[in-house]
Amino acid sequence: MPNFSGVIAPVLTPFGEDGSADPDRFIEHCQWLMDEGCTALAPFGTTSEGNSLGLDERMELLEEIVDADIAPELLMPGTGTPSLADTIVLTKHAVEIGCGGVLVLPPYYYKAPSEEGLYRYFSEMIEGVDEDDLKVYLYHIPPIAQVGFSLSLIERLRKAFPDVVVGLKDSSGDWSNTAAILDKFPGFEVFPGSEAFLLDGLRKGGAGCISATCNVNPGPIRKVFDNWQTNDADKLQEGISAVRKTVQAYPLITGLKAIVAHFRDDPEWAKVRPPFTEMPEGDAQKLVSQLEALGFTMNFD
Amino acid sequence: MPNFSGVIAPVLTPFGEDGSADPDRFIEHCQWLMDEGCTALAPFGTTSEGNSLGLDERMELLEEIVDADIAPELLMPGTGTPSLADTIVLTKHAVEIGCGGVLVLPPYYYKAPSEEGLYRYFSEMIEGVDEDDLKVYLYHIPPIAQVGFSLSLIERLRKAFPDVVVGLKDSSGDWSNTAAILDKFPGFEVFPGSEAFLLDGLRKGGAGCISATCNVNPGPIRKVFDNWQTNDADKLQEGISAVRKTVQAYPLITGLKAIVAHFRDDPEWAKVRPPFTEMPEGDAQKLVSQLEALGFTMNFD
Repeated sequence: MPNFSGVIAPVLTPFGEDGSADPDRFIEHCQWLMDEGCTALAPFGTTSEGNSLGLDERMELLEEIVDADIAPELLMPGTGTPSLADTIVLTKHAVEIGCGGVLVLPPYYYKAPSEEGLYRYFSEMIEGVDEDDLKVYLYHIPPIAQVGFSLSLIERLRKAFPDVVVGLKDSSGDWSNTAAILDKFPGFEVFPGSEAFLLDGLRKGGAGCISATCNVNPGPIRKVFDNWQTNDADKLQEGISAVRKTVQAYPLITGLKAIVAHFRDDPEWAKVRPPFTEMPEGDAQKLVSQLEALGFTMNFD
Repeated sequence: MPNFSGVIAPVLTPFGEDGSADPDRFIEHCQWLMDEGCTALAPFGTTSEGNSLGLDERMELLEEIVDADIAPELLMPGTGTPSLADTIVLTKHAVEIGCGGVLVLPPYYYKAPSEEGLYRYFSEMIEGVDEDDLKVYLYHIPPIAQVGFSLSLIERLRKAFPDVVVGLKDSSGDWSNTAAILDKFPGFEVFPGSEAFLLDGLRKGGAGCISATCNVNPGPIRKVFDNWQTNDADKLQEGISAVRKTVQAYPLITGLKAIVAHFRDDPEWAKVRPPFTEMPEGDAQKLVSQLEALGFTMNFD
């Protein structure tokens, strides 16, 4: 049985007026996501502006989720930083409060590291965390991190740590890469980084998706997951792909926050942390109109 | 009078057998650098593997330098991280223990941020640190950080924070960029990131250099700084440029550590933190031989 599967949201992080993370809106959003169909949550991913949060902020927010009675085994927080030491701190904390897994970026400051260097990084990280319950998901997002995971690195890590390195999120945007990983590693929990590849992934043994857009469209995405072996699957996939395509034509993080702000009628939700800037009001209105033309809505009853 | 000038080493960070930073070798190296001609030290730069160190490690090592009686006003530690919150923590700590300046990377996880987003990042950072003695040096290193400082961003930050944003390290490797900054901002403390541009920089009003190679060749580099207005200047510059060119033909950080390990007769010094791996012994020997053929040595009498 897989450790994680289904529809996982890299949870958006709302910020208050003073720029600090807003735990109330954050928890409200986490609970809404679970109610609407997410099977698990991946806070502190790229979409979460996770890399703009401080170590203490990440640990405090994670504890808030657990305190809000969301089962920690359904949490897969991002814990990767450029620093081995800080990554160990965040990862150990996540395991200690019961998180079912962690999503770990490669160290992304120094570019073009060798495969051996990345192998050593993950080996020392796993040994440094030193927790029996550690489950690591490799976070492959070369368009942003620049540093990624080759097939041979994945193979080496799986071989050395078969009970620890159990899955991967593929945000390469390159379906042929996802397909190659699925072909080569049966049983590995592979999550495309976009629901555009959800159905194709499931048909090849994929575990679900971990996708930014799950923050606003969790119900319909879950429907694809629940019905992927039915005759409706392609039609359902078309619907979520159309929403994704519309959202993706705009800056992703600021767009998603603008969508939540609109449907919650809560302008504070649009706030982002530098280096991001809020989406201009005109763009936000255009994005929402285009989504509404597709029949999209967010349900807060 | 400039806040910093001259020959500044981004101090190499030695690691012990268990992979943790080695404070004894670190302090010994800092003291050697100051004795041999460095005018100041920039710990936790790119060459320092600073981005592979944890927040706590950085703060503890910085306190070690101050405890070792190196004047804190001669320290310009790197304090930039992808996270505004963590950057504020490190920067505030550095100012509180008396550091004369901080060298701050832009937030480098998210790529292609807008100028407005970077402006807000630095504004919020400076306001968040909230210390009268804060002196910020912008760290421009697009080959690695990918995110950098445009002329218009520099202009905006200088205008908004004239007493805080006082200088820049230009590690673009592009002399035309350094020259453009020097032309546009007289009085701004501009340090090329390589001593290959030291003399050219000084002739255009540059402040000195902050360069990896200062870790192994501080004396001759200092000689160029001290004699740049004499007839010997070009000849002296040729000498340090030849050393730089030789070192630069190899991976920079692992090569510098191999050089120190050789001349200190201390193999432990070659140790690097993942994602780096030590330079193969054959390459290290070749690099040292090539340097010795130029008359290069390190003096530990």
